[in-house]
Amino acid sequence: MSEIRHNLLTGEWAVIAPERAKRPGDLAKPKGQPEIPAYQETCPFCRGNEHLTTDERFRLPSDDGNWLIRSVPNKFSVLSPVGEVAPRNEPLGDVVSGVGLHEVIVETPLHNSPLALFPPEHAEKLVWTYRERFRGFYADPRIRHVILFKNHGEEAGASLQHPHSQIVGLPIVPGQVLERADAALHYQLENGDCMVCRMIVEEARTGARIVAENDVFTAFIPFAALSPFHVWIFPKIHAACFSTLDDAHIRPLTQILQTILGKIYTSLNNPAFNFVVRSLAVKDAKATYFHWYISIIPRVGKAAGFELGTGMYVNSSLPEASAKYLREASPPPLT
Amino acid sequence: MSEIRHNLLTGEWAVIAPERAKRPGDLAKPKGQPEIPAYQETCPFCRGNEHLTTDERFRLPSDDGNWLIRSVPNKFSVLSPVGEVAPRNEPLGDVVSGVGLHEVIVETPLHNSPLALFPPEHAEKLVWTYRERFRGFYADPRIRHVILFKNHGEEAGASLQHPHSQIVGLPIVPGQVLERADAALHYQLENGDCMVCRMIVEEARTGARIVAENDVFTAFIPFAALSPFHVWIFPKIHAACFSTLDDAHIRPLTQILQTILGKIYTSLNNPAFNFVVRSLAVKDAKATYFHWYISIIPRVGKAAGFELGTGMYVNSSLPEASAKYLREASPPPLT
Repeated sequence: MSEIRHNLLTGEWAVIAPERAKRPGDLAKPKGQPEIPAYQETCPFCRGNEHLTTDERFRLPSDDGNWLIRSVPNKFSVLSPVGEVAPRNEPLGDVVSGVGLHEVIVETPLHNSPLALFPPEHAEKLVWTYRERFRGFYADPRIRHVILFKNHGEEAGASLQHPHSQIVGLPIVPGQVLERADAALHYQLENGDCMVCRMIVEEARTGARIVAENDVFTAFIPFAALSPFHVWIFPKIHAACFSTLDDAHIRPLTQILQTILGKIYTSLNNPAFNFVVRSLAVKDAKATYFHWYISIIPRVGKAAGFELGTGMYVNSSLPEASAKYLREASPPPLT
Repeated sequence: MSEIRHNLLTGEWAVIAPERAKRPGDLAKPKGQPEIPAYQETCPFCRGNEHLTTDERFRLPSDDGNWLIRSVPNKFSVLSPVGEVAPRNEPLGDVVSGVGLHEVIVETPLHNSPLALFPPEHAEKLVWTYRERFRGFYADPRIRHVILFKNHGEEAGASLQHPHSQIVGLPIVPGQVLERADAALHYQLENGDCMVCRMIVEEARTGARIVAENDVFTAFIPFAALSPFHVWIFPKIHAACFSTLDDAHIRPLTQILQTILGKIYTSLNNPAFNFVVRSLAVKDAKATYFHWYISIIPRVGKAAGFELGTGMYVNSSLPEASAKYLREASPPPLT
């Protein structure tokens, strides 16, 4: 029989129904995907096509005077970087003007090199860039919440193939973010500890859902994972804000992120996925109740009326079985 | 410039970015969809194939001794109708066994007849069936929350073409439902009234987002709609639970539901959509803070990392423009 598990962090229940899939590996994408070229003439993110993405906001130069990583305004941003927030109250709800920041971080000059396969030192530069842009966005006084995420593959909403991440600075705090912060605060007031700090201890004790770990970070499949291979990466030492990531911790974070993405890449045949950095704002970095993390969600399933109507998800794989599968999967060798 | 609107009912913000789409009609599905037969040999829901869906739980007979509407257990249910709920506390969150009810309501014997085009008296029988099964599910003491929904079209998660709805009885209350009830209660404690009752008055006053109405129900596009053509149908007189729907109100509810679905059908060329009945439980039917409703979400867009990471949506159409478009659209003539 399936079981219904409550996710302490999100406040939501997930139906864990492993009988729906045969084995975790059955969820892998079919093999034999088309070859991707290293350069594409029409790609705005390929080296040589920089004129297609003007107004560059950040550049990590390479030794030969070219670039390794760039950040450019999202051409299709729905937020305007110019203007004031100008809040107003309407009888049916508050309104603010669509002011905010939205950049695309071009992760590499190579069109066909997924993050899972980056040379580690390049991946470290990307994680460093994430932190720098994240800090930079919060330096804008109009910005109340920053969300850093990556869509990989069409099913995950990526409209361009070239490896890229996105960062959005919002003039409001999303309701979902408030709710989760609220739940975390309630937990701490009631139990004394940060919910996640306790969760990390408990996950380490059983080991059943751990996928990878190092001295500084741990990665596991949530007890009430909303989909198979949904993975959380947490710093082991309490920290509420991604901006506080220490220089010395960029390497271990990169290492665990590449390990997880690499295991997903090889064992599920490069599926579409999203990842999201969930963090409080820089001004709340000292909060003791919230613990920042990265949530990785491979896209193996589809939301419909049930999910829309309840906010709940049906997970066709037992989290412990998915964790074992990924734990035992080899990430690709990195050069 | 786009604007960011707060949805009082869901607590979430939506980015309203109408410059992304040219005109509401540009979101219509391309014309020239393949013809669908009235009967399909392999369809488990077609008349004559009842042996493919045994253990029928409900049947509305036709005059000739056949059936008009049936409800059968969902073959792919992730919940078992047999067993006890058996809650247990685990250190990482509560768990209950996967006990619950999950039925498919076969709306019509005709494989190719969408609800928008049903003869009104048949559609009324369907709405009556909704109410009866809804009441029936809550009669099971193990059931804490019932969700009634419809997935139409593949992009909306429908795996079978034959018109059908679904009803799920859960042994827990989804976190999202608790959060929204909570927000509604807070509003009422603070402001004295039901939030939706106020909203209905205000929507009627401006009229800008109204799509259709009759004596008993009103339908409008939410002020902070999460997607174009997202429509809410509310009873005008306060009611917290769908189960209290009066016999005399089945006709006006059917009429407004068919009008909205019909407008969407004709003006957007039969797009995929979901609808969901959002209601408190039968035991909470007298609550003065919550107002039951139907939420209709045509699928014209795709969620990605931004949506996953924030819970917010980007709506490429101004709610007032979508409402005007649907208001002026003619539903198909019904026989």
